[in-house]
Amino acid sequence: MQNILDHDTVAFDEQSGTLDIIDQTLLPGETKIIKLKDIKDIWEAIYLLKVRGAPAIGVAAAIGIYVVMLSEDTSDAGDFARKFHEHKEYLVSARPTAVNLSWALERMEKVCLANKAAGVETMLKALKAEALEIRAEDEDMCLKIGENALTLLKKGAGLLTHCNAGQLATSKYGTATSAMYLGHKRGYGFKIYCDETRPLLQGARLTAYELASAGMDVTLCCDNMVSSLMRQGLIDAVFVGCDRVAANGDVANKIGTSVVAAIAARYGVPFYVCAPSSTIDPGTASGDDIVIEQRPGEEVTEMWYAKRMAPEGIKVYNPAFDITDHELITAIITEKGILRPPYDLKSL
Amino acid sequence: MQNILDHDTVAFDEQSGTLDIIDQTLLPGETKIIKLKDIKDIWEAIYLLKVRGAPAIGVAAAIGIYVVMLSEDTSDAGDFARKFHEHKEYLVSARPTAVNLSWALERMEKVCLANKAAGVETMLKALKAEALEIRAEDEDMCLKIGENALTLLKKGAGLLTHCNAGQLATSKYGTATSAMYLGHKRGYGFKIYCDETRPLLQGARLTAYELASAGMDVTLCCDNMVSSLMRQGLIDAVFVGCDRVAANGDVANKIGTSVVAAIAARYGVPFYVCAPSSTIDPGTASGDDIVIEQRPGEEVTEMWYAKRMAPEGIKVYNPAFDITDHELITAIITEKGILRPPYDLKSL
Repeated sequence: MQNILDHDTVAFDEQSGTLDIIDQTLLPGETKIIKLKDIKDIWEAIYLLKVRGAPAIGVAAAIGIYVVMLSEDTSDAGDFARKFHEHKEYLVSARPTAVNLSWALERMEKVCLANKAAGVETMLKALKAEALEIRAEDEDMCLKIGENALTLLKKGAGLLTHCNAGQLATSKYGTATSAMYLGHKRGYGFKIYCDETRPLLQGARLTAYELASAGMDVTLCCDNMVSSLMRQGLIDAVFVGCDRVAANGDVANKIGTSVVAAIAARYGVPFYVCAPSSTIDPGTASGDDIVIEQRPGEEVTEMWYAKRMAPEGIKVYNPAFDITDHELITAIITEKGILRPPYDLKSL
Repeated sequence: MQNILDHDTVAFDEQSGTLDIIDQTLLPGETKIIKLKDIKDIWEAIYLLKVRGAPAIGVAAAIGIYVVMLSEDTSDAGDFARKFHEHKEYLVSARPTAVNLSWALERMEKVCLANKAAGVETMLKALKAEALEIRAEDEDMCLKIGENALTLLKKGAGLLTHCNAGQLATSKYGTATSAMYLGHKRGYGFKIYCDETRPLLQGARLTAYELASAGMDVTLCCDNMVSSLMRQGLIDAVFVGCDRVAANGDVANKIGTSVVAAIAARYGVPFYVCAPSSTIDPGTASGDDIVIEQRPGEEVTEMWYAKRMAPEGIKVYNPAFDITDHELITAIITEKGILRPPYDLKSL
């Protein structure tokens, strides 16, 4: 099995001045690095999930907007800042639910504006430094989440994860998978279960691939098999990532997360959300205030298939995310520590 | 949209002496009737789910073993009965979990043995009458389940079903869908949701197809979206079929049924199991005593897809059924009436 981990998920190529990403829509069949510098291509890469996962989207947007600004032909700082703002607004529209996207771009804009007096060249330098800092912080954050999560686990544990909050969703280690990577290196001998995560199959195509290529004991199942696994006592803990955490602890994450959480609650299996603190949004009171993106029905009826698998003209319900109620969440694991209920994240 | 309901799911063709079934693995793209008389073809049709759904399997096995016996070249009643028994054992091995398969074949064997003294010709006549009686009883059973279920529903209700316990799983009306057909005719204006039912997509390919072709308001979703639907209050009741009911009310049904049941319990949505009384197995104490068939991993990783959607060599967990614990079941609806907890089906 080719080791997908040999490649960076998101990187800046100094020589070509490009944002380099693994095109994740081609996995696991083909590992192709694509080099982007055009704003529309970057928007499309985010929209079409060529790069996906909240942390990776944030890093890609930060590096992406920097490479776009590199080729802006202006020496006027005000003009430069206005163009930056336009590009920022456009990129945010690609994935409205993922708070990391706007979070990373806000950070970049602050740096852009703070250096306005010093002129365009300084602004560009500062943007580059900030983008690389966001990337480095992301890797460090993943490592710390993994160390925190690992304190909750015993050797030989059965672990379930949903979607991909893995290395392919971050700069390194992943969030939900970080303890799996660290534990694997330290001989914990985990038994990992990945659900395939319909409709886009990130669990089958990405998580199963990256964990198996790292040499772990991985078993794939369909989303509707998690109850069967837990009823047999095969799962000791669930780890998922998240796209946004509301102040009351409600979590927006990939569609199906709340199904796994409710089943885990029924069988007394701890359900852990691995959340970079950048995904915590104290301004959002509860899950009910989070806008859920609806995606095209063809993802369910046609995508990946050799032929259409549903009758022509059928209506389709296809939300990209769901809300997991805070009472189903055993703990939220951040790089700063482990948060337990009652969640009150307004002050974070 | 072609009306799939113009064709019988399972029928006996007098002229050709064949078991005629719709090949359900080709739906919804192609509606093809296949004519079977060879025992191996009939075994394979059941094993490969060309005919599926507990009641339809029972009817197909009954008609199937009759057409096979039609071409047995013996005038010795003892020999005929021995061959019948061999064929019966072989057919039962195709789907060990579905109790209807052995139930229908037991009924046929009883009739076979009861007429042994009268000779082969009488045995054949009796087998034909019994097979057609099983089919007629199945249609009547579905109708009665539908009438019973309909008493539980209001106009405009949102109804969710899993897998296909529809007309395509029975002789007519279906079990879980029977109230939908009856209500539709009587202007109830139900809003029907079908989950796709991985890995074999019976919800997308079969249920969405048959209900939409009957003119109902049908929306398709993935299995992991049921929590999102219920959290929004869009579902007023869930109806599923079943393959076997244990004496304590535990139910074996298509993988994923127990996921829907647990989510329904969480959101206070009534969860109804539509069960022909032939699927109630008083000899099985609880769900733990039911053998669950494991199926090939390629159903998850390759089937239907244009290319393999998971890494090569990955382990796969692919049980065909799961057990829904009786405490998650609001009521079991049979043709004889509505059973409510505590379930004690030993005396049925």
